[in-house]
Amino acid sequence: MDTSMRRASVQMADIDAHTYRDWLASGRATVWVPVGALEQHGPHLPMGTDAILSRRVATAAAEATGGLVAQPLAYGYKSQQKSGGGNHLPGTISLDASTIIGLTRDLVVSLLRQGARHVVLVNGHYENYQFLYEGIDLALRELGLGPGAESSVLLLSYWDYVSAQTLEAVYPDGFPGWDIEHGGVLETSLMLHLEPHLVELGRAVDHPPARLPRFDRLPVLPSRTPASGCLSAPTGSDADKGRLLFEQVTADLADDVATELGLRL
Amino acid sequence: MDTSMRRASVQMADIDAHTYRDWLASGRATVWVPVGALEQHGPHLPMGTDAILSRRVATAAAEATGGLVAQPLAYGYKSQQKSGGGNHLPGTISLDASTIIGLTRDLVVSLLRQGARHVVLVNGHYENYQFLYEGIDLALRELGLGPGAESSVLLLSYWDYVSAQTLEAVYPDGFPGWDIEHGGVLETSLMLHLEPHLVELGRAVDHPPARLPRFDRLPVLPSRTPASGCLSAPTGSDADKGRLLFEQVTADLADDVATELGLRL
Amino acid sequence: MDTSMRRASVQMADIDAHTYRDWLASGRATVWVPVGALEQHGPHLPMGTDAILSRRVATAAAEATGGLVAQPLAYGYKSQQKSGGGNHLPGTISLDASTIIGLTRDLVVSLLRQGARHVVLVNGHYENYQFLYEGIDLALRELGLGPGAESSVLLLSYWDYVSAQTLEAVYPDGFPGWDIEHGGVLETSLMLHLEPHLVELGRAVDHPPARLPRFDRLPVLPSRTPASGCLSAPTGSDADKGRLLFEQVTADLADDVATELGLRL
Amino acid sequence: MDTSMRRASVQMADIDAHTYRDWLASGRATVWVPVGALEQHGPHLPMGTDAILSRRVATAAAEATGGLVAQPLAYGYKSQQKSGGGNHLPGTISLDASTIIGLTRDLVVSLLRQGARHVVLVNGHYENYQFLYEGIDLALRELGLGPGAESSVLLLSYWDYVSAQTLEAVYPDGFPGWDIEHGGVLETSLMLHLEPHLVELGRAVDHPPARLPRFDRLPVLPSRTPASGCLSAPTGSDADKGRLLFEQVTADLADDVATELGLRL
Amino acid sequence: MDTSMRRASVQMADIDAHTYRDWLASGRATVWVPVGALEQHGPHLPMGTDAILSRRVATAAAEATGGLVAQPLAYGYKSQQKSGGGNHLPGTISLDASTIIGLTRDLVVSLLRQGARHVVLVNGHYENYQFLYEGIDLALRELGLGPGAESSVLLLSYWDYVSAQTLEAVYPDGFPGWDIEHGGVLETSLMLHLEPHLVELGRAVDHPPARLPRFDRLPVLPSRTPASGCLSAPTGSDADKGRLLFEQVTADLADDVATELGLRL
Amino acid sequence: MDTSMRRASVQMADIDAHTYRDWLASGRATVWVPVGALEQHGPHLPMGTDAILSRRVATAAAEATGGLVAQPLAYGYKSQQKSGGGNHLPGTISLDASTIIGLTRDLVVSLLRQGARHVVLVNGHYENYQFLYEGIDLALRELGLGPGAESSVLLLSYWDYVSAQTLEAVYPDGFPGWDIEHGGVLETSLMLHLEPHLVELGRAVDHPPARLPRFDRLPVLPSRTPASGCLSAPTGSDADKGRLLFEQVTADLADDVATELGLRL
Repeated sequence: MDTSMRRASVQMADIDAHTYRDWLASGRATVWVPVGALEQHGPHLPMGTDAILSRRVATAAAEATGGLVAQPLAYGYKSQQKSGGGNHLPGTISLDASTIIGLTRDLVVSLLRQGARHVVLVNGHYENYQFLYEGIDLALRELGLGPGAESSVLLLSYWDYVSAQTLEAVYPDGFPGWDIEHGGVLETSLMLHLEPHLVELGRAVDHPPARLPRFDRLPVLPSRTPASGCLSAPTGSDADKGRLLFEQVTADLADDVATELGLRL
Repeated sequence: MDTSMRRASVQMADIDAHTYRDWLASGRATVWVPVGALEQHGPHLPMGTDAILSRRVATAAAEATGGLVAQPLAYGYKSQQKSGGGNHLPGTISLDASTIIGLTRDLVVSLLRQGARHVVLVNGHYENYQFLYEGIDLALRELGLGPGAESSVLLLSYWDYVSAQTLEAVYPDGFPGWDIEHGGVLETSLMLHLEPHLVELGRAVDHPPARLPRFDRLPVLPSRTPASGCLSAPTGSDADKGRLLFEQVTADLADDVATELGLRL
Repeated sequence: MDTSMRRASVQMADIDAHTYRDWLASGRATVWVPVGALEQHGPHLPMGTDAILSRRVATAAAEATGGLVAQPLAYGYKSQQKSGGGNHLPGTISLDASTIIGLTRDLVVSLLRQGARHVVLVNGHYENYQFLYEGIDLALRELGLGPGAESSVLLLSYWDYVSAQTLEAVYPDGFPGWDIEHGGVLETSLMLHLEPHLVELGRAVDHPPARLPRFDRLPVLPSRTPASGCLSAPTGSDADKGRLLFEQVTADLADDVATELGLRL
Repeated sequence: MDTSMRRASVQMADIDAHTYRDWLASGRATVWVPVGALEQHGPHLPMGTDAILSRRVATAAAEATGGLVAQPLAYGYKSQQKSGGGNHLPGTISLDASTIIGLTRDLVVSLLRQGARHVVLVNGHYENYQFLYEGIDLALRELGLGPGAESSVLLLSYWDYVSAQTLEAVYPDGFPGWDIEHGGVLETSLMLHLEPHLVELGRAVDHPPARLPRFDRLPVLPSRTPASGCLSAPTGSDADKGRLLFEQVTADLADDVATELGLRL
Repeated sequence: MDTSMRRASVQMADIDAHTYRDWLASGRATVWVPVGALEQHGPHLPMGTDAILSRRVATAAAEATGGLVAQPLAYGYKSQQKSGGGNHLPGTISLDASTIIGLTRDLVVSLLRQGARHVVLVNGHYENYQFLYEGIDLALRELGLGPGAESSVLLLSYWDYVSAQTLEAVYPDGFPGWDIEHGGVLETSLMLHLEPHLVELGRAVDHPPARLPRFDRLPVLPSRTPASGCLSAPTGSDADKGRLLFEQVTADLADDVATELGLRL
Repeated sequence: MDTSMRRASVQMADIDAHTYRDWLASGRATVWVPVGALEQHGPHLPMGTDAILSRRVATAAAEATGGLVAQPLAYGYKSQQKSGGGNHLPGTISLDASTIIGLTRDLVVSLLRQGARHVVLVNGHYENYQFLYEGIDLALRELGLGPGAESSVLLLSYWDYVSAQTLEAVYPDGFPGWDIEHGGVLETSLMLHLEPHLVELGRAVDHPPARLPRFDRLPVLPSRTPASGCLSAPTGSDADKGRLLFEQVTADLADDVATELGLRL
């Protein structure tokens, strides 16, 4: 962000509208939107984990690329049993599809209409992805933007930036798959690195990875979700793995987006 | 299905309502719903490929397990560049999320309310999945069904039943990943086995797999989609591979669902 | 359709997207959309009757006028007691108004946006009509098309093309009215001509026409619908009447639409 | 209505809520809801014609059967060319389907939830009918009322109560059909009988009935609607015909509804 | 309104569409839309009070400024306990937010699209305000009108035009606040002046003003609403106060709007 | 909150789901939901002011009453010119009514369904109020909760708890009214007390209070909003006033809610 900005924060909520207006006028303003959920993450991680992580990733990438970070979407789509343990567990706020679609649409429309050139949504809750996509699509329709437009919106999930090398380092015994990475080693390690005071590793439960069917069944059979609420155990998590994950992901993400959007790094 | 059914068809549209009513009364009636799309699939496959394949899979599984097959949802959610080449290509009908959600909800509500015990949605278009999930969730809410209910709805994508062994046989040089299996070897081989008169292999284009970014960008950069509209080339497809895929998938799928729902095989 | 099209089918789902693209480029492309329902039609007709008939009519008219036929909307609006016997009978899938409106809107938008010049909706389920109209109206609003536009959408119910002369031939003892033509002589004769293997005339029930009030009452009094589910008996149906109906209707319909849209016949 | 009601009016808006509460407690309270439109009706009739007529009919029927009349729904669904001349003519307010459906649903829910036993919707604008039906259906779903419920909702269009004998008297030269009865002899005669000060017969235009196709075309070709905006000319209208129509219709309607709902006449 | 208008009425529903069309062509046409509710107003006032009063105010202002008055929106948003006594009392029709928003949007779009230059919504039911605002905002978005547009929509509640001087005259012992002016001195006096035959003062109940908390609680505690349904007693109402209120409010309102919109007074 | 809770935070996002589950089991769990906006607040206050303040107020009240605080709704309804300066100013994210209603509904449903006994929404953005109300009402309908239910939802705006005495102290020269308290003395003083590092008083602009009409005009005349974006100047703000406001409001609010809900203080 321009060095003339009077405040140190890249959090959009922390700066004033006149400063923001000046920044928009640069013509290359990119706003990063973290998207999370309030969802049970087992006994050792806070319910806000998804929004905390996506916000930290987005903040690092925004700092690296001169962007600003909007307030996270703190609530997400319904937890699904095969990716988040299921919707039936207390501590999970469940938005209907129409709500998260509308929220995304309104946010993207507001940002682009006022002069942001690009918006980057950084997703931290698997279940959100398709609804964020629809929200963006409806926003572009409302704004009349199609192929060839100067503005653009990028949508990504931060774990898609974990490299094969990092994966190997984090899971020396083999990666169990993204599906069951809910409250497991990746999220726990990241939290130990970034927000250790919110992790209580002593409460973590060790158990084998959940074995889930190839179909979704609704209503869920609650017994398919481990009692901890995690789909794989956090056993083996540590802050070093978290640091490795965070640094590799944010570096690659910032680089990838900067290249795509022609931002200076 | 009961041997007393007067017609040979398992297609729900082909039987009469009085016969259907008697069948529902059995108390174990399972209705299979194929879900597809009308979407460009390159120059060698018909636009209806996704619905054709999901219908054939659902029909085989229904025949094996005594179920009936509802008319396919012939139109699907917007084609996304990273899984279907993108929404901007002629020959692709794009439903809004709200439409496909509503369609799924109404269909599931109607079927369960009238006495079907189980509904199985067989998806054949990647982009649909989350919206089908939401439609089912809304249907169960409307019906007041939660954990412990006797009725259930299963949702699955048929390719999740392709075994590792089959994959190896179909892709002897290594599997390129489901993401870019659009108009490629899997779909083409299945069509060559099931509907050869609808495939024109001579029009197929050979090209390297599409290289797509880790993010979705909207509006799309059309140049990222190969000119053929396929994300990987169908080179190497044949009817034998198609037969292998079809037989393995439908057998495993029928078996899995029958076990889950307590159906006789 | 252009003789250079490589496949014999006029079914849009059966042709490939590149061929479709070329056809659109002609600038006079007309897509026909059959609209039906899955609805009980008594003990002698299949539940898919409405979609089967509208598809056959649309196909004949498309063949005569160089058009293509989209996949039918296989599910329709709630059966109403005064036209379809009512919503409470098993075997009838009931879409909410918002669903069928959205489906129509999305389909018309997709077709016109990609280059179809005209769309013709051929309705085969009485209750759908007004919701199809609304879907079209919303599509045109989204596309910004008003009076004077080059593109257009036609909406019709195929029975509105039955001539007085045909009516007299089919109902020698007097026509009971369209309202109660549900599972009666018209639909049964058409099915006997077009899909005889799906009709089981031996199961048909003879009963006097339903006597229905001038109001709709909700919730319905189920006793007002004859036990057969038909509003008038199919007694007197035969394949010859079906052929007469089909040939006269499709000829007049094709002629009328071709004249309206300036298509070559 | 009970003779103890302190005010002479049967208009719900004119009485107080305490009186209304007492009346509901009778357990047989029937509320009549007139539904109209604000729509062009040619140069000789006011734009409010549809609501005026449905309100007068509903009021007469309510007086005869001890009911109350709610405020009319004064705005209606889009005018369609084949029944109202079209949506493009100034002086016509056009509600989207979702609006009129929601309005009907909310109104029916409120009335039944507070203790009205029956609701009768009296439609005076052809295009509304199916959307009113959907609104009622959604209301009953929300209230959990199905077949067998004590409460009910009736929906009707007042012209369906015109008898064959009356028709012959009003149209001695043959009835042109309900479709084109827009601003014609029926509506004009009724208005001359009921609200003569709002009719300016000297401005009426004589022209042959509109010749409209069997399909709806959108966007409309404006030239298909006569310049007057009427689909048939009001030539031959008079107050006597209006009185005959009004008295016959309201008598038969009140009788029919009273019989259906077990109201005292 | 132009003196050449053939009818004395300023009610849009009472004039014909051709006259209306001519009036629109003046280029300065302003349509006034009264918005009310059907809501309990205690034992002495009719349930239609809010629509009656907003219509009378709008009519007077329209007469003074050459405008026309559309049919009132006769049903309003849910009565809230702190402003209308609450939603649970019989005699109150409750529209969902989506319904009143849609109604407002459709009405404003229709009026402006056909040539009305300005629309003025005169609100008479406190709870409506924000939903009317949203309806207007959506209408302008649909029409593509933003700052700088020639057309405009004004939204106001008529009581915001009561002057301090009038307030003092009407409430010599001190004004209790707008919140609890439901069925109280303002509305009762206005009704005594304008529609005395609809007021039954002998049924009015004297009671101290309701004491309501600073929060809204849902579900409501019914006991917080006085048994009369009024939030303050009408004690002290008379027709003279009503006349004073009406004349001052309509004069100032007409003057304010005429100045804003450049209308001749 | 129970002293056995392992973490010091009352922020729901910071605690784990198992702890939360135990807390819900107490049967008196009250969740506080702050509601704000991202909105321009002049050159001296951050755009997140509304959410920051409502969160701080909710946190203090939750701490005093043993509750937990959910993540704030960080985005709000469209800024209106008469209360927030208007929707057209950069730095304001504008949610449609349907979005904020849906968000509120989903959040309240999730919280109550999982065992929270009470939910308290603390609003910090004037324009939100009615949409929050509708969201709550829809949630209760979905949950089937009416008068007499054990659970409840409270909705309030924190400024409604500013006492007359405090007002006098904060505005020694007279209170200009809540309408134009946007970026003025109240918000600025509170921020100086609570988040001084986010206030840049040197950038504040002194100007007379905005003079706004009694109507809302749309589209807005931008010139009616002072160039600063504030409706009244922050001149005279200081941290002491902020402390006074904060302490008095939170004490009274906690006390009021604790009394209403029977919570221990």
